[in-house]
Amino acid sequence: MDSLKQKYALSRKYAGFINISPIQTGAILPEEAERATKEFIVGYAPYNLAQGIEIMDIPVVRDFIENDLPGFLNADRVRITFGAREGIYIAMKTAAKPGSTVLVDENSHYTTFVAAEKAGLNVEIVKSSGYPEYAISTQDYEEAIRKHKPSAVLLTYPDGNYGNLPDPEPLAKLAHENSIPFILNCAYSMGRMPLDMKKLKPDFMVGSGHKSMASIGPIGIIAATEKWSEKMLKKSLHHKKSELEFMGSEIRGTPLISLMASFPYVYERVKKWPSEVEKARWFSRKMDMLGLVQLGEKPHNHDLMKFRTDPFYEISKLHHKKRAFLYEHLKSRGITGIQHGKTKAIKLSTYGISKDSLKKVLSAFEDIVDTY
Amino acid sequence: MDSLKQKYALSRKYAGFINISPIQTGAILPEEAERATKEFIVGYAPYNLAQGIEIMDIPVVRDFIENDLPGFLNADRVRITFGAREGIYIAMKTAAKPGSTVLVDENSHYTTFVAAEKAGLNVEIVKSSGYPEYAISTQDYEEAIRKHKPSAVLLTYPDGNYGNLPDPEPLAKLAHENSIPFILNCAYSMGRMPLDMKKLKPDFMVGSGHKSMASIGPIGIIAATEKWSEKMLKKSLHHKKSELEFMGSEIRGTPLISLMASFPYVYERVKKWPSEVEKARWFSRKMDMLGLVQLGEKPHNHDLMKFRTDPFYEISKLHHKKRAFLYEHLKSRGITGIQHGKTKAIKLSTYGISKDSLKKVLSAFEDIVDTY
Repeated sequence: MDSLKQKYALSRKYAGFINISPIQTGAILPEEAERATKEFIVGYAPYNLAQGIEIMDIPVVRDFIENDLPGFLNADRVRITFGAREGIYIAMKTAAKPGSTVLVDENSHYTTFVAAEKAGLNVEIVKSSGYPEYAISTQDYEEAIRKHKPSAVLLTYPDGNYGNLPDPEPLAKLAHENSIPFILNCAYSMGRMPLDMKKLKPDFMVGSGHKSMASIGPIGIIAATEKWSEKMLKKSLHHKKSELEFMGSEIRGTPLISLMASFPYVYERVKKWPSEVEKARWFSRKMDMLGLVQLGEKPHNHDLMKFRTDPFYEISKLHHKKRAFLYEHLKSRGITGIQHGKTKAIKLSTYGISKDSLKKVLSAFEDIVDTY
Repeated sequence: MDSLKQKYALSRKYAGFINISPIQTGAILPEEAERATKEFIVGYAPYNLAQGIEIMDIPVVRDFIENDLPGFLNADRVRITFGAREGIYIAMKTAAKPGSTVLVDENSHYTTFVAAEKAGLNVEIVKSSGYPEYAISTQDYEEAIRKHKPSAVLLTYPDGNYGNLPDPEPLAKLAHENSIPFILNCAYSMGRMPLDMKKLKPDFMVGSGHKSMASIGPIGIIAATEKWSEKMLKKSLHHKKSELEFMGSEIRGTPLISLMASFPYVYERVKKWPSEVEKARWFSRKMDMLGLVQLGEKPHNHDLMKFRTDPFYEISKLHHKKRAFLYEHLKSRGITGIQHGKTKAIKLSTYGISKDSLKKVLSAFEDIVDTY
């Protein structure tokens, strides 16, 4: 028993570190949301807002889902999911019949492929331009649509590898002309940058609370146009109040508290997006001067970036810590967030990190390049 | 903006109250788990245990899921879900083909019906004995199996209305003799009382972290026998590491931290189950003396109870607060957890509540009965 107690006395290993992890920079809670979330460390959390009534009958929860979130995204209908992957799955299941084909960009997250498989769909790919930009041209969807006759198309906006931000508008036009439902994966954009569903015109837009909306997970968002909402929100025959695909909504728990408590902060921070892009570009230029070459679109349009790091790879061949040296070196400087054991290329994000902290990151990289 | 800030400055309304809510008494976190969970108020929480590696490669997470949880339940294989309803859905989807029939007890939670519908199954019901015991006899499954030829059977152990605890063992025997997979819904037992899967012999056992395992939600558990695990844990063709139905496991987030941090406490507390049953029976007897009559099995075998409260109903007809009077009266005594507006019958749980606190609850009820 004491050994169990010891084993599960969990602690964060990197609290207080500068965190450049692409999957975490958008998820740091503001102080007020941290406070609220800590209060709701209890099972069935939202019930504690208004004990004894159904979750969707709690005024603030209903208002969040029916008014404030749709307003924020300029969307017709919004529902809470367990994350972007569940959102993609629900969108695909709603939009396409099992056995049909979904057309996705080559930069899609692996969960896009898994969600399609779970929904019984075949996947066809629109290739990127390859090294070094890996750009997705929405024009390339045109030929692929002719060839594969997909029942849905998906675009990753941006992708999680290069942070490339292809223009969804031409694809939306193309999809609508061909009457094909269009899914936009916004796991790394919803909550970071302004999104206007009526302007971008996808049929579904999917987001992630624990990636980009300053929330603990698991939580995400799916937005749909009115046209699709009836099918997506089909009610259970057995239990008229339950939307079948969501199996009742009250299980969203403490992450829902966190998502709601962070909402006013997220609502404001997306307005500062241009300065985040500016900062990312500045960081990319500084890295370039160290011989660490940014891949993906240049100039870059997002805080998520991948760098080719040839000097680090060369060092790892000689270093006594081998491929672990880079991670360990950053750790010794109070920096975390790159993948352990990677030296040929690294992914990072500058989102929400001050220039002073980013200078420390640059200086940690510079010291390695200089020393070896 | 300020109005948004105000709206989403969420606070618990009933912190510090004696909480007799059946869906919450089993979810109170012990101090050590509250501390750990508060540390992980951050997106993609488990990554902070070991940044840069896959969630299932974190030794403590892997050990929890592959060794400690199976050991605790004497189960072959265990996976984490978003709650009991997802567990029931996965069990049904694994065990039965769409279009076939699942046989369930009449006391089943509404999500059992919704999960069956989502899995494309027809539902047939084994009736309870009705008022006042609403007992489920597993012998009644025998005729129903002959009649409906179900492809799966489910038993709720116990149900969330009466806290009735039917004996699963005869049903397990019957199901195995007929080669029908048997699902045991343990949302209100797993984490409250000892469960031994090899003794009870279901094919699937489903639990809820935020109902009975001292955890924040949304989180649950599905346990399966080796026989079913291959089908249940089928890997994605697109992404060999991902189990298709679970779409990758890293999104279980902060609730997973909470579930793990509470595990040593839960592991110990189930051993005290006999004294919890004793306390529930004592409470039931005291209620009886007030003319508040316990429904369901008597003597009772679980902390979750429903009482017929005729005196309260009579009072509500005359009281100026009408049906809200009971809830409000309890609230004024620092007691919460019954459903707002119910006076004919109330559901409550005595789990983990001290006798002193329960005496306060009894005295609050007594005062009403005496005054009117």
